[in-house]
This record gives sequence, C-alpha cells and structure tokens, in this order.
Amino acid sequence: MSPSLPRILLTGFDPFGGEPINPSWEAVRALHGKRIGGHLVVARQLPTEFAASLRLLKAAEREVRPAILLGVGQAGGRQQLSLERVAINVQDARIPDNAGAQPIDEPVIADGPAAYFSTLPIKAMLAALHAAGVPAEISQSAGTYVCNHIAYAMLHLAAKRRGVRAGFIHIPYLPLQAARLRGAASMAQAEVERGLTIALRTAARTTTDRKFGAGTLD
Amino acid sequence: MSPSLPRILLTGFDPFGGEPINPSWEAVRALHGKRIGGHLVVARQLPTEFAASLRLLKAAEREVRPAILLGVGQAGGRQQLSLERVAINVQDARIPDNAGAQPIDEPVIADGPAAYFSTLPIKAMLAALHAAGVPAEISQSAGTYVCNHIAYAMLHLAAKRRGVRAGFIHIPYLPLQAARLRGAASMAQAEVERGLTIALRTAARTTTDRKFGAGTLD
Amino acid sequence: MSPSLPRILLTGFDPFGGEPINPSWEAVRALHGKRIGGHLVVARQLPTEFAASLRLLKAAEREVRPAILLGVGQAGGRQQLSLERVAINVQDARIPDNAGAQPIDEPVIADGPAAYFSTLPIKAMLAALHAAGVPAEISQSAGTYVCNHIAYAMLHLAAKRRGVRAGFIHIPYLPLQAARLRGAASMAQAEVERGLTIALRTAARTTTDRKFGAGTLD
Amino acid sequence: MSPSLPRILLTGFDPFGGEPINPSWEAVRALHGKRIGGHLVVARQLPTEFAASLRLLKAAEREVRPAILLGVGQAGGRQQLSLERVAINVQDARIPDNAGAQPIDEPVIADGPAAYFSTLPIKAMLAALHAAGVPAEISQSAGTYVCNHIAYAMLHLAAKRRGVRAGFIHIPYLPLQAARLRGAASMAQAEVERGLTIALRTAARTTTDRKFGAGTLD
Repeated sequence: MSPSLPRILLTGFDPFGGEPINPSWEAVRALHGKRIGGHLVVARQLPTEFAASLRLLKAAEREVRPAILLGVGQAGGRQQLSLERVAINVQDARIPDNAGAQPIDEPVIADGPAAYFSTLPIKAMLAALHAAGVPAEISQSAGTYVCNHIAYAMLHLAAKRRGVRAGFIHIPYLPLQAARLRGAASMAQAEVERGLTIALRTAARTTTDRKFGAGTLD
Repeated sequence: MSPSLPRILLTGFDPFGGEPINPSWEAVRALHGKRIGGHLVVARQLPTEFAASLRLLKAAEREVRPAILLGVGQAGGRQQLSLERVAINVQDARIPDNAGAQPIDEPVIADGPAAYFSTLPIKAMLAALHAAGVPAEISQSAGTYVCNHIAYAMLHLAAKRRGVRAGFIHIPYLPLQAARLRGAASMAQAEVERGLTIALRTAARTTTDRKFGAGTLD
Repeated sequence: MSPSLPRILLTGFDPFGGEPINPSWEAVRALHGKRIGGHLVVARQLPTEFAASLRLLKAAEREVRPAILLGVGQAGGRQQLSLERVAINVQDARIPDNAGAQPIDEPVIADGPAAYFSTLPIKAMLAALHAAGVPAEISQSAGTYVCNHIAYAMLHLAAKRRGVRAGFIHIPYLPLQAARLRGAASMAQAEVERGLTIALRTAARTTTDRKFGAGTLD
Repeated sequence: MSPSLPRILLTGFDPFGGEPINPSWEAVRALHGKRIGGHLVVARQLPTEFAASLRLLKAAEREVRPAILLGVGQAGGRQQLSLERVAINVQDARIPDNAGAQPIDEPVIADGPAAYFSTLPIKAMLAALHAAGVPAEISQSAGTYVCNHIAYAMLHLAAKRRGVRAGFIHIPYLPLQAARLRGAASMAQAEVERGLTIALRTAARTTTDRKFGAGTLD
C-alpha cells in the first residue's frame, strides 16, 4: 500500500441464506487496490456472522486506519443501489447467521446510542449516481441483520476517530442469482462496480452534503 | 374524563397528499372515550404539519398527562398494521406538509438523540394481533415525514416522564381510498379499530416485551 | 328456489395450498338464496381439482340453468377485487391440485378455442364498484391453475347457451389469512360480499358494456 | 442478406410514455445481421402506434419472409425477461399511442380468434436462459397496449404461413432509465442481448417444447 494516500476500507460479506455467492464481495474485491478520489481502496471480506464480523472489522480498521469506511451488503429483492441513511442499535435476526447465532432484540453495542446517521454525503452520492445513469435510492432502514450490525459498528468506530467518516450501501442480487429465484430484481456486477466507484469518489471529494428531498412518507 | 383511570393519548392526523380523509383519524376518533386495558382513551387530531403538530402534541400531553402515547398515521401502500420499532431524528419531506413547509434533512429536535426505540412492547402487541387474526408486522422505519416526526416527538416527550411509554402504528388506506387508486392495498376501518384496541390493551397490560424474531435481513 | 326468477350460478372453491379456508367460498355461500338484480343466487362449492371441478360445474349448470355464471376464486397476494377479462385454454399447475393432479401445458377443453373473453360487462361492473368505494381492477390474466380452468369452462358452457353470460372474479386473502402470512394484502369478508353483490347487480342489469380505459401497458 | 439462411424477423419499438429511449430497440438493433442458431437476424423498428406498427410489420414480413418472428417490447417495472405465453385480441390503451390513438376494447384483428398461444418453445427457452444465469420468467399476459397488439399480429401472420413460428418477449427498463425513476427494476443491455441470443438460438433449434411447470396460481 502507498503510505502517502488516505485509505478507504471497503467491506463485503461472504454468502448467506443459501446463496452460493454474495454480490457484495464480488463487487468489493474488484475494487481492491484501486485509487478513487485520491484514496486507496482496501477491500476486506467479513463473515455473515454477528460476532466474528465485528471482531474482523475492528482489526481491519486498526490495521488500515481508513479515512472512509464503506460497508456493502446484499439486499435480496431491492432493485437499486440503496444508500443507507441510518443504522440502528439492534440485532433481530430472522435467520441464523453463518455461525448459527440468531440474536433477537439485542444491541449491537451494549452502551451505544440508539442510532447513527451516515456521515457520508448520501444526497451528493445519490445525485452523482443518478447523473451517471446508475439506479440508486436513499434507504431509511438497513434492516436488523448483519448488514445493519456492521453499518452501526462502522459508524460507532468512526465516531471515535477525528475526521473519519462511514456509511453503508445495499446492492441487489446479481443476475445469475435472480435467474434461480422467482421474480427477483438484479443488477449486473459491472453496474454495481461503476456505482460503488462513483459513490466513493463523491464521498471522498464532498465535505458538505447537498440538500434535496429523498425521504419517504412512511 | 374519569380522574381515577390512567390515560392513553391516541393521535390521528388530518388528510394530506390530496386524500379527502385520513384513515388514522377515522379509526382514532372511534376509540375516544373507550376504556381499554384499564386506561381511558383520549383521542386527538394532529395536523399533517411539522411545526403545528409538535405544538399540539405538547399541549395535549400537558393537558392529558397520559401513561401511554400512541400515534397513528396513514401509510398509503402498506398492507398490514405496522408497529414501528424506531423513530429517527430527521425530517426529509418528499411533499410539502399541509402548511406548505418542506424541511429537508432537518432534525425533529435540535439537540435530540439520533433515534428512539419504541417503548411499547411491539413484539407482544404483534403476537396478540396475529392471535386475533389481524394482519400486522413490525416496521423498521416510520419514514421521514410527519408520522416519523410525531413518533420521534412522542418518544422524546415520554423519555422525560417517569413510567410513560410511547409508540407509533402505521395503517393502510381505507377501502374507499384504495378504490380511487390503482393497485393499492387497504384495510376495513372496523379491522383497524379492532387492531388498535388489541394493540393498546396489550401495551397497557405488558410490562416486559416478548422476544421472537420479527426483523428484516435488509 | 323461486321458479319465476332467472338464476345466477355463483361458485367458490374449497381451500388449497395449505390454507385452512378459501375466502371465495366464505363470500359466495353468504350470498346463496339472495335476490340480486332480479336474479336468484344459487351458490355452489367446487373442489380445487381440475377434473372434479369441471364435472361438478357441468352438473350444476344443467341443474340450475343459470342466466349468469360467476366463478369466484382466491388470488393470494392481490389487493383488490380482480374482474377477469379473459380465460385461456391451458392448465399449467405450479402445485398439485387437491386430488394430486398437476397438469402442465394441457388444454382445459381439448378442442376449445385459445381463449374466451368474459361476456359480463366488466367495465360497467368496475365503474359500479369504484362508485361504491370498493377496491377493484380489471385483470388481464386469471392465471393457469384451477381458477382459470373454471373461468374458461364457464365461458365455454355459456357460449353454447343462447343469452347466457359468464365471468370470473378473483378476490384477496381474508384478514385472518393474511395475519399468518408475511406482507400479504387482504380484504374483509363484508367488503367482498358487498363487492360481489354490486358486481352481480350491475351484470344483471347491464346489457351493453361501458367503454373506458382499464388495460395495462404490459 | 445471405439468401441461403432462414431468417428471424426481430422487432423493437421506438420510445413511448415519455421515455427518451426504448430498451427493446437498443437490444434488437445490436443483433441485426447476427447469425443465431443457423438463422440470420433481421432487426426492424416498429413505431409505438397501433395502426402504423401493424402496417410496418406486415410489410417487413412480406419482405423478409422470416421462419421466426420475435417481437421485443419494454415492460417498465418488470424485473426479468418475460416470455409471453399468449396474446389476446384486444386493444385497451391506458395512454395514447405515439400517433395519439387510444383504442378501448377494440380487437387487434376484427375477425381474429380471441387469442393465440406463442408458437415458440417458451419452456425450453426459459430453461436455457436459467441455465445461462439470465433472469427470466413465463408471463401469462402481454398487456393490452401496442406490445400485445404486435404479439397478436405476429402470431396471426405466422398462423397463415406453413412452418412459421412467432412469439414475444418483454424486457425491463435499462439502468439509465431506472436511474430517473423511483424504485424501478432494470437490466443491463448486455444481459438483454445475451438473453435474446440464447432465446432465439433455443427457439431456432427446438421443435418440440419441454414440459415443466411455469404457470401462476392466479
């Protein structure tokens, strides 16, 4: 790694829920070593396990010392890149994680706040994605499984480091996953990689977020 | 009002978004004066306005001194009663409110925490609704409009009062609203009233919530 | 039965797909013996079986000699009353029927035409339902299971009788069914009965259908 | 054109409904001149107009003398390639076509049958697409707009020619279209082209369709 460049810690997950691959890791590893927006991308795989993912995230953060943390996760059924606005301090697992754990209504961090808002400029990122023709949306919930867990943990870590920012993006199934499922939306891997690159470049270069409406009525 | 009974402050909204009625108020006012779970229900209408709804809520809370606050709002397109798990400290209005205000990425309470979790026993309420045959779900987001705003404000108010609890339920369109819209789900008013009654009775009688999975993967 | 009134043969199905009840039969039997639009309603239950439902339909039609045949069936997941525009001459069963048969790409009637259009005035029925505040829509497909099978068979039978008309309406789950399912729309039985009554009254009294757009782009 | 190869007449549409492009034409024109399954592909654009599209289709069919006709059209909101099972003899336009015509409940062909089933081997095509990892499904309705109109007209034309087969495939929005729309699914153009190539190759080489369930319950 170049010592002179600030770093982006970009994480994807291993497969879960019976899927043979996880599109988050496929996209994230393709960006490893790239230079985006004046930052060097360091990609790491996290296990889809509540406990181990947190340990590995902390270790990776200590090692990489990133200026930006971006978690990426699979959101089966979503149709667009979902820029998460907020992560909440709860684990409520509908299915066991890859280690067999299924926490219900437990906090991610025992003494953490109820939620953290993303500290990446999600509106500017959304506008850049739309301008480039990449389907994307702001999401008001990252769920209550391992993705929200890591999103919360990244923001908790970043809150302790001066000037470090963090966020999370959910991505659709890959087409080859959707081909095995009835009625699922998908996004090509090249489009996901392009979208993540644009999102990261915008995050790297934007200090004050834009303001335009992208909420939901309910 | 009977001075001897603890009170439930139950709020609904006036119509918005071009709809002639708001199902939340239709259901809520039908429960005004009822005795549910040893509590007296006091129903109040709030305007679908960020500023005024907050003022009226505060005044109603001071007057009624409720043990439980439950906000109810219309969620056009949802198919079931949605028990909200969390309210977040943001306003991001896709359409202007009924006073013409359209705040974007502003906090509900300037110095409030990022979020509050519902302090009503939403899992026990969900189980009671399902046992009674009422379609219901846990929701991980109340949106970013006036409903989330009031949900957050109720939880902020309740946090200052010893023993006071609060929460929010989103309800579908009424059938007569759905009849004018293409492809929208609906729920009969009698079913909504029955569901709110069961939810309130369970909330009134349950001090420790149940634990079973009702989260989402993303 | 009054010998002087023309008859409506109104059919519902028995439960299938693991459901304990079928909302079509619950609604249909409640209308048995009613006088609607100058016709007497005769309700009959059909089994959710390709072969037996066809035999029973033919026998019921010979016995009742209806002026109007209306089949009603459960469409799990639909949000409104669906007035079917067309029935097609194919059986393609995703799950076995209640007798264990699972025909794939077989015709309903070996020498029948590819499809029949409903001969009930579906646009006038839709307008009457909307005017009465009942959620309803025109559907372009009744599927390829036992509902479409009976819809086709009714239209095939009616085509041989001078002045006899036929059609099919799909209805949502009942609330108590949706309460056991994740994220399913429902309609109260009273609303379904009201909707079927309005639809039948309009069908009985309308000889020339109205013309207004209610199609789909794809 | 090579005189020795049988031809495939492959059609796409021009943009409609306010969209600046039509993904069907983008994909179809990329396949013009290709040799697929021993056939030469001849691509033609049709206008999204009921009257003119029929005239141009007839002229193109007379000129090209195809062994296979495949119409391709945009289905905004669908998530997968949709292999249409049937086309029905009706026009019911929710929006005016590009010439301003808005026929309601008019037949495509005045004396035509109620419907035609696709004469392409849609189950074999579906299996080939899934084996190649392309999201695809059988659809039971091509709608009631210009796509169904051309699907019906192609099957009507093919029915008069010995050995000529026809069918229709609906495709999702392109990503750049979905980027401007809220919550719409999309498919990359390369994936659509790959899917159409596989579908055409399978159609060209398969004379007897496979049988496996791909219907819908309702």
